[in-house]
Amino acid sequence: MSEFRQDPVTGRWVIIASARNARPWHINLVSDQKRTEPCPFCAGHEAMTPPEAWADRDSSTQANAPGWRVRVVPNKYPALEDNGEERATTDGFYQSMNGAGVHEVIIESPDHVVNLSALSKEQFVDILCAYSARLRVLKNDRRWRYLLIYKNHGERAGATFEHVHSQLVALPFVPRKAQDEIDGVRKHSDVTRRCIYCDIIQRESEHGERLVSESDRFVALCPFAPRFGYETWILPKKHAANFERSSSADMTALAESLRGLIVKLNGVVENAPFNFVIHTAPNEEPANQYYHWHMEILPQLTRAAGFEWGTGVHMNSVAPEDAARLLRDGAL
Amino acid sequence: MSEFRQDPVTGRWVIIASARNARPWHINLVSDQKRTEPCPFCAGHEAMTPPEAWADRDSSTQANAPGWRVRVVPNKYPALEDNGEERATTDGFYQSMNGAGVHEVIIESPDHVVNLSALSKEQFVDILCAYSARLRVLKNDRRWRYLLIYKNHGERAGATFEHVHSQLVALPFVPRKAQDEIDGVRKHSDVTRRCIYCDIIQRESEHGERLVSESDRFVALCPFAPRFGYETWILPKKHAANFERSSSADMTALAESLRGLIVKLNGVVENAPFNFVIHTAPNEEPANQYYHWHMEILPQLTRAAGFEWGTGVHMNSVAPEDAARLLRDGAL
Repeated sequence: MSEFRQDPVTGRWVIIASARNARPWHINLVSDQKRTEPCPFCAGHEAMTPPEAWADRDSSTQANAPGWRVRVVPNKYPALEDNGEERATTDGFYQSMNGAGVHEVIIESPDHVVNLSALSKEQFVDILCAYSARLRVLKNDRRWRYLLIYKNHGERAGATFEHVHSQLVALPFVPRKAQDEIDGVRKHSDVTRRCIYCDIIQRESEHGERLVSESDRFVALCPFAPRFGYETWILPKKHAANFERSSSADMTALAESLRGLIVKLNGVVENAPFNFVIHTAPNEEPANQYYHWHMEILPQLTRAAGFEWGTGVHMNSVAPEDAARLLRDGAL
Repeated sequence: MSEFRQDPVTGRWVIIASARNARPWHINLVSDQKRTEPCPFCAGHEAMTPPEAWADRDSSTQANAPGWRVRVVPNKYPALEDNGEERATTDGFYQSMNGAGVHEVIIESPDHVVNLSALSKEQFVDILCAYSARLRVLKNDRRWRYLLIYKNHGERAGATFEHVHSQLVALPFVPRKAQDEIDGVRKHSDVTRRCIYCDIIQRESEHGERLVSESDRFVALCPFAPRFGYETWILPKKHAANFERSSSADMTALAESLRGLIVKLNGVVENAPFNFVIHTAPNEEPANQYYHWHMEILPQLTRAAGFEWGTGVHMNSVAPEDAARLLRDGAL
């Protein structure tokens, strides 16, 4: 049983998920990557995962059998479980909540693909549509106030399976990093009546030095103050709060932009480990229209360490202007 | 030249330190650990580092020559440099500041020791006294509003040299994680007239389930809402805002507590990689007396990944009650 707990000093929430590690003291420091044979994510091995929650599959095929393009299953070692209503408890000093939530795995290919660049543009479209489908379904449940799609690609980025996949978590509260962005958007909007992300896009399109790519519908740019080397954001040029309400033309354009960026990143650093997250509006407020959804691609070439954990300030040795030039042109 | 930059949406500061990586696109993904031969931190190789800023050495010996027990040198690849006053600049949209600060390395032994447990209690006292001496000197410079001592131990915790060492950074502002704690301390004090860290110590001493060790002067405990497996805090039992004003009896007791904890941690996970940070009061306000200094020991057995970077919420698979029992008793 997992649990949300709040630090009494800073108000920071954590998830204590002991179930994820039945024997917590036996941690393999040599390699996180479980090259399980056979791979539970490959077509034909559907029985090795929990029953699927959703799949993009041929209509002639059965659930939990081959014939799928993208398959969504509950995480076998979930950090959170759909175990009823949020129940906050306190002993008069410490605050905690039951670990109510959703934790799913999106299996991105039926074949044992380990390199995302090997997936076609059409497969990227299918994957993005799977994200969107799951977000739309789960947002119907008003208990889940925030939903995050994220990817851990490569061992250094926290992946425990090499077969291409990403994850979805639904939370009963809006987490701090999302709230920080929402607060920033509101503050800027109150003063200027404009969206700060729209302002960033306009500015970066005009200046160009941090721009990686631009299409009719999307820009990919290295942000002015990146936490990580080669950090890149992909944003829709037309203001929109919710990723999951994107049109199919948007999905096609996003697939192109995202796939192009991953290919470029691999051109700069071979098989670069990275995380990405999709920041979409929370599941609650009418004020959501202020928000501007986006993807953050966060390469993990160096490690956050004592300085970052102690201050919250990241040291980044790659200036975003250099990163953008390398990603854009392949050379400084 | 490094630079502080602020994210325009969230207000988050980062340090862009391109000088730390002369060739940013050549990043060795196989191993961060530079097993440089000869080791620049060993006695006899003093010329391989920048000239020492401070050393605990026999009075008969000369600066930058052998005869030292602990040696403090400027970081050869500094994230920040003492290059004058803070100068904030803006282009009307983005905010930045010159990278004025201090970045030093504390070399903790003249011998090529890689395992902290191999250092004696007396050596731990010498190291803590070196931290304290540098903090006292640097706090005389009112430009540095916040100072952090931190250690990256082991490759997975971000260390780039194996010879035992830690680092000191001086910043021209109070970073967010420190401010979060200060705000939490003030809020609790406004309501209760008590220090929240004193309350935590009292509570945990009474309950005992998250207590790792306790002496006359210090407690070591696993916090209620830890971000990392086996995260442990060491706090002085007597309320004190500033680590660097600790008495020599405090230093001896702290050395014992810290060394004991590291030995225990290695007993649970062999040669565990970890970070630690010393959170001491900022260098500015009379309100500092509200603060309660402490050390946070942050083992790095798993990796922060997409979920953590996207939400700010950490998933931790080791409950602090289990962690404390294992560290305390060596078994669950």
